[in-house]
Amino acid sequence: MRNLRKPYLLFLAGVTLKSDAKTGFGLRDWCPADVIGEWALPQATVSLGLQVVTPADAAARGAGSLLIGVAPVGGQLPESWIPTLVQALDAGLDIVSGLHTRLETCPALVSAAARSGARLVNVRHADRYLAPGTGRKRSGRRVLTVGTDCALGKKYTALALARALQALGADASFRATGQTGIMIAGEGIAIDAVVADFISGAAELLSPDNTADHWDVIEGQGALFHPAYAGVTLGLLHGSQPDAIVLCHDPSRSTIEDYPHIPLPSLKEAIRRYVEAAQLTNPSVRCVGVAINSSTLDDTAWTRYRQAVADELDLPVCDPMRGGVDEIARALLA
Amino acid sequence: MRNLRKPYLLFLAGVTLKSDAKTGFGLRDWCPADVIGEWALPQATVSLGLQVVTPADAAARGAGSLLIGVAPVGGQLPESWIPTLVQALDAGLDIVSGLHTRLETCPALVSAAARSGARLVNVRHADRYLAPGTGRKRSGRRVLTVGTDCALGKKYTALALARALQALGADASFRATGQTGIMIAGEGIAIDAVVADFISGAAELLSPDNTADHWDVIEGQGALFHPAYAGVTLGLLHGSQPDAIVLCHDPSRSTIEDYPHIPLPSLKEAIRRYVEAAQLTNPSVRCVGVAINSSTLDDTAWTRYRQAVADELDLPVCDPMRGGVDEIARALLA
Repeated sequence: MRNLRKPYLLFLAGVTLKSDAKTGFGLRDWCPADVIGEWALPQATVSLGLQVVTPADAAARGAGSLLIGVAPVGGQLPESWIPTLVQALDAGLDIVSGLHTRLETCPALVSAAARSGARLVNVRHADRYLAPGTGRKRSGRRVLTVGTDCALGKKYTALALARALQALGADASFRATGQTGIMIAGEGIAIDAVVADFISGAAELLSPDNTADHWDVIEGQGALFHPAYAGVTLGLLHGSQPDAIVLCHDPSRSTIEDYPHIPLPSLKEAIRRYVEAAQLTNPSVRCVGVAINSSTLDDTAWTRYRQAVADELDLPVCDPMRGGVDEIARALLA
Repeated sequence: MRNLRKPYLLFLAGVTLKSDAKTGFGLRDWCPADVIGEWALPQATVSLGLQVVTPADAAARGAGSLLIGVAPVGGQLPESWIPTLVQALDAGLDIVSGLHTRLETCPALVSAAARSGARLVNVRHADRYLAPGTGRKRSGRRVLTVGTDCALGKKYTALALARALQALGADASFRATGQTGIMIAGEGIAIDAVVADFISGAAELLSPDNTADHWDVIEGQGALFHPAYAGVTLGLLHGSQPDAIVLCHDPSRSTIEDYPHIPLPSLKEAIRRYVEAAQLTNPSVRCVGVAINSSTLDDTAWTRYRQAVADELDLPVCDPMRGGVDEIARALLA
């Protein structure tokens, strides 16, 4: 639940694949006002289309942090990044990292941070004491995005839903559970990085007691049907004690990504299983809508698919990137 | 998956409640041949009924480790234990601890270990590289104990089942997932202490490929219906990919222990939910028996209860502490 120093300079290192710069694109799309510009190494071929700013110039313009906007293979810190990170620290910028490797394991960064007083911030690592979940009912209202698989829009859906609720006049907060979400929100807990015993306890901390009509819109993680990450998903579901869930799905997938031997459940079955599991800590939980990542469908196919799903499930069906999620936000407030 | 140095001297510190010495009793009951004796502080009022041996005498008799056989409130290391632990290290004994606090956080222990070359072993903390689960089918066979709640006999049932299978001539190994189980087995992974992303990956490491007729009997953790620990349970279930599960239950409980607002499911419902979840990584999983902790029932009540459950579920029903689990072992091999 740390507070990050905004605005950010987005560092893209030597990125050559757009998908490796997912964090940078997420920041650009969801909090452009918090972004000063981008900076990369000479070998980079991907750009976010933002103004190119050196670390020193960014600091002079009021930036608070250099944010690592790319995910290197393996999550380690490449040697080639270190001179740039040291320059940023020397200019007084914090370094904000979502890598598995803690920045403190690099002595050059520790020295530079000590020189300037800037901070090394590892958003994947919890910075506070965690405890097992209590299952105690909290005040306020909560909605959690859940998925048929990983990496199909749970964060974007939660961000869009928080904005749609605010636009409708509701009091709503986005609650981040992953590294990019935390960088966007400026706070949160990377739920997949906590000790297994404390998953639901961490989720409880993330959405504390609130006023009766306040909505926490909680970013989901993993999937209940994922052979690697279902434990994270279930602990987050129990600790979030959601009043409502929104199911996210990508119709181009029929098996779990990278696990071709594990078929996806039907949407109906997925909803049944999520609601059944969530009833443990909130017996009145309901599914209020379906968020589709329709990027592989043309307009005709999307219109047809959307209608078919809405008819089958009798729920609002939206794509946050294609028309928004107002219909789901309204169902939530109804 | 560390190897612990046996035999052990069991250290009971200043224990005054039997339930705080659960680890000591578990070691005494399940691997008496690996235990040299017990040692405590003057204020202790609980004994395991073993020979009282000083750390120096234990070392002289061939002990490999002083094992902390009590769980202090909060899991921290009390100051009052340190002189005894230093004596043990000076005598060349490893210290084996299941505490949350790593022994290395105490400088006096680090110095003493460096002097004698003895090791500080924290069984709650993984000592090897973990990765997310793969969901890949492994050779060999696996049975996992699961529960309607925590702390009702999953470890004892797994230990008893491994022995019963061996007594029937089967090739079987107990696989430990908690601190006491690891101390008994001399190896294992404390599954509740791994990073959340790696729960099922750790479970996969714990029961690797094996010969076709070999049985891994895996110690379960938590419960799918537990508001704090269900994530651990689900990840362990997916990574274990069990061919069979044994449901453990204590008929004196109607709600989750320490969570009086969370009712337990019926046995039938619990089996349905566990089998449904386990099918993700092993579609042919089946429940082969029910293990009851019948300590609160007299003989008449136990006979009646056992028959009623067996009739309802059409499964063998055993209490590992009251007649053993042979019937379940035979069902497993059938």
